[in-house]
Amino acid sequence: MKTNHPSRYQYKQRILSTINKADGQDQLSRGFDIFIMVLIVLNVFAVITETVQSIQVKYELVFYYFELFTIIVFSIEYLVRLWTCTIIEKYRHPVWGRLKYMFSIEALIDLLAILPFYLPLFLDMDARLLRVLRLFRLMRIFKLGRYFVAFQMIVAVIKKRKEELLITFTLLVVMLILASSLMYYIEHEAQPDVFTSIPATMWWGIATLTTVGYGDVYPVTGLGKLLGSVIAILGIGVFALPTGIIASSFERELSEREKNRKATRRHENN
Amino acid sequence: MKTNHPSRYQYKQRILSTINKADGQDQLSRGFDIFIMVLIVLNVFAVITETVQSIQVKYELVFYYFELFTIIVFSIEYLVRLWTCTIIEKYRHPVWGRLKYMFSIEALIDLLAILPFYLPLFLDMDARLLRVLRLFRLMRIFKLGRYFVAFQMIVAVIKKRKEELLITFTLLVVMLILASSLMYYIEHEAQPDVFTSIPATMWWGIATLTTVGYGDVYPVTGLGKLLGSVIAILGIGVFALPTGIIASSFERELSEREKNRKATRRHENN
Amino acid sequence: MKTNHPSRYQYKQRILSTINKADGQDQLSRGFDIFIMVLIVLNVFAVITETVQSIQVKYELVFYYFELFTIIVFSIEYLVRLWTCTIIEKYRHPVWGRLKYMFSIEALIDLLAILPFYLPLFLDMDARLLRVLRLFRLMRIFKLGRYFVAFQMIVAVIKKRKEELLITFTLLVVMLILASSLMYYIEHEAQPDVFTSIPATMWWGIATLTTVGYGDVYPVTGLGKLLGSVIAILGIGVFALPTGIIASSFERELSEREKNRKATRRHENN
Amino acid sequence: MKTNHPSRYQYKQRILSTINKADGQDQLSRGFDIFIMVLIVLNVFAVITETVQSIQVKYELVFYYFELFTIIVFSIEYLVRLWTCTIIEKYRHPVWGRLKYMFSIEALIDLLAILPFYLPLFLDMDARLLRVLRLFRLMRIFKLGRYFVAFQMIVAVIKKRKEELLITFTLLVVMLILASSLMYYIEHEAQPDVFTSIPATMWWGIATLTTVGYGDVYPVTGLGKLLGSVIAILGIGVFALPTGIIASSFERELSEREKNRKATRRHENN
Repeated sequence: MKTNHPSRYQYKQRILSTINKADGQDQLSRGFDIFIMVLIVLNVFAVITETVQSIQVKYELVFYYFELFTIIVFSIEYLVRLWTCTIIEKYRHPVWGRLKYMFSIEALIDLLAILPFYLPLFLDMDARLLRVLRLFRLMRIFKLGRYFVAFQMIVAVIKKRKEELLITFTLLVVMLILASSLMYYIEHEAQPDVFTSIPATMWWGIATLTTVGYGDVYPVTGLGKLLGSVIAILGIGVFALPTGIIASSFERELSEREKNRKATRRHENN
Repeated sequence: MKTNHPSRYQYKQRILSTINKADGQDQLSRGFDIFIMVLIVLNVFAVITETVQSIQVKYELVFYYFELFTIIVFSIEYLVRLWTCTIIEKYRHPVWGRLKYMFSIEALIDLLAILPFYLPLFLDMDARLLRVLRLFRLMRIFKLGRYFVAFQMIVAVIKKRKEELLITFTLLVVMLILASSLMYYIEHEAQPDVFTSIPATMWWGIATLTTVGYGDVYPVTGLGKLLGSVIAILGIGVFALPTGIIASSFERELSEREKNRKATRRHENN
Repeated sequence: MKTNHPSRYQYKQRILSTINKADGQDQLSRGFDIFIMVLIVLNVFAVITETVQSIQVKYELVFYYFELFTIIVFSIEYLVRLWTCTIIEKYRHPVWGRLKYMFSIEALIDLLAILPFYLPLFLDMDARLLRVLRLFRLMRIFKLGRYFVAFQMIVAVIKKRKEELLITFTLLVVMLILASSLMYYIEHEAQPDVFTSIPATMWWGIATLTTVGYGDVYPVTGLGKLLGSVIAILGIGVFALPTGIIASSFERELSEREKNRKATRRHENN
Repeated sequence: MKTNHPSRYQYKQRILSTINKADGQDQLSRGFDIFIMVLIVLNVFAVITETVQSIQVKYELVFYYFELFTIIVFSIEYLVRLWTCTIIEKYRHPVWGRLKYMFSIEALIDLLAILPFYLPLFLDMDARLLRVLRLFRLMRIFKLGRYFVAFQMIVAVIKKRKEELLITFTLLVVMLILASSLMYYIEHEAQPDVFTSIPATMWWGIATLTTVGYGDVYPVTGLGKLLGSVIAILGIGVFALPTGIIASSFERELSEREKNRKATRRHENN
């Protein structure tokens, strides 16, 4: 016999679909998505502006109450997700399923978003640790990942050429080591306070290979400038290789998609 | 019965086709195009050189009369366009059509090009506002848009991959926030006057991620330099992703155009 | 009746094919090519090293005799080319043909390579003009163009997308003008000695848009840094657009070449 | 008659396959690979950190014994390879084959990795030469090449467009020479201590064309800044050309691979 009032399962399902990303025309779910996204962005904005002395002093209370409000919302969200997760097949078991959910990346990000508030209440912490904890509030930015599916296309393109990109990176590191070691041996005598060691010279190496070029460290001897020139030119390859790899990967991806679409259309016509 | 002298409609049409971009061999229309384009370029040149003290003092009168001449020409052009716009179907109504035209992007750009001259005549303005108004004269550069159709191809290519480029931009912003926040916490103690707050550190973050590297701000601690190196390397991706997206988009565009041309030729042969 | 000793025409042809780029196994012609190429490279090297005070003082005579030797060789080459050019169809006429040849780009480059030596002998020149003339000796580098056919492939690829690249350049200039003007209005008050005028600010604009970032000029106000950040990010597009255009152009070029090769092969098989 | 105990040939083969890169499930060979790779990475790490004064003083003995251990392992590896190389067809001869192997690139890298230790034992060397020898220990990094086959794909892609990349490089050098010479003539008078000669100006040229922009050298005159701007913009092409070439080369490579795979599959189906 069917009861008229909704079961606990239906309740859970309704709530979960509301707090999850809306995919249809569920106005409530959509509204909730936007509310959480705005809250996350405002939080990131708060963490950033809080470090400006003048603003922090002026709006100390605003920041405090906003943090409190955020913690309440995110804590409730976390608990509700923990409560409703059992309707998902793999987290079905009321105890083990919930534990398993708690250790999913999604849930860990949610936990890290609220933990910096609760931890100092239970543990004795010095000023330094507290400051690091404040930084952890920035982790809330990762909660946004839930709402941007399109990120996954770029991630997919990069993943497909993972191996090539890794080799490009290895190449960059090998270049960096050789360039910095050579430069250290060439410039150490002329500028012993600047090129103090190979690791110190690597800071120059990175700035040159990536073409950032702060200008705090640079060779002054003729030989050093010659090597620096060669490294700067090789640095062009550091851009050309990953760009070439990613460009061709995108081209492949789009090409395959089009073929699939055409194949589907042809299939439909027949 | 057909009259021999041209009707008002024919007058309007003749004038509009003259002031619009020439697409045939209308010598008068072509001459008018070139006249307006040269006037725009000279105007941009005037706004720029006017800020050089020595030139401004020497040629003050020349600048004044040139501005006056420009305003007269552009005002007449604006009024003529407003008068003749009624022969275009969607602006046909003598009152509402003209109002609708006045709020088209094209007409607004034309209005903004002359407004900075008329506004101070009617409104009381302080020196600061007047200086900002002078800057607005640079908007005249956008009047050039009417004459370069090819801009639209690049715009089309970018628009087609709008979503991917937007995500790349979001990725850049997230990277910037995380990098700057971390750097602030690492370097704040060592350089409290440079890395004063996270927003201030973002100036370093932008200079590093985009590889501009002015060299006014850079980390000095070992940990800071390590993070700086990682960010500089990640900055390569900031170039690789949009370049890859745009390269593949151009390739698609050119590929499709060629196919269309071939299809047209095959069609013509049959 | 055929004479046994070669005619003047055959002499000319033999000489011209010797001094021109060798395309077969003509050992003499090949040797002459290498001789001229080495001479050009040594000349460029001489012009460059001559500016180093210590080297110039030490090897003054060497530089002088080398210049003399170069002038003799290049003068003879020029005269021989002028004498033999008449065997080429379009320069056939002994007088008008030779005059026409003298005004071809190839011959003008050859003339500019030797003129800086002869001019002071006939004309009275001050020290400044003489120094500029010395610089003109670098034009000899363009004589190399004769020997590198492969340059033409890159030139062809760039030429094919000439229009798109030109628009990219226009976009860059418009961006530069708007960015520099805005920055001037924002930063002028805070740094009146640095951002003195819009043209002066353009130096900052170029350094930022191209991501060179010398660090001699940069905004210090909050608003200025915000605008600087936006410009630096837009600068990424300045790289992405031409790179995308050139990458797709190369891809097209290689793709078409392969198709042609395949078509040729198929044709041969049938 | 087959003997039961393995022959010397089988011994050699077993040893060689162990020290070579494991391609199957040979646990011992795999373990040896990892051991050598870790040893190489630790060595590079040691050479780098040794230059840090404080670390060097503290861990002098550790560095010494680690170097000793490395030399023993690499020496044994070298001798074993020399002993077993005769089972490879082209090094079959016990004397000439081994000599031939000793002059293969692979064996030379192995030798250079240990030579810096043995040389000072036999030869009298001053401090300077000894320091250069220490640098040679970094050559051990090239021993890694044996284990990364995937490097070869990138090398292949670059090799295929070798000619185009070389021309791009030549173009860069020509641009550099012309830009630096012009800049020298323009800026020499205003900054005689900075733009001392053309070779000195080339340091500015490289920093600008590669967009590194350290900021230690930059033009100050109006004309110099104009030329600097043009060079900075042309520098964009310095990135666009190689990136375009490499991107199209990757695209070709991946395209051909896919076709081959499809062809193979079709062949298998028939």
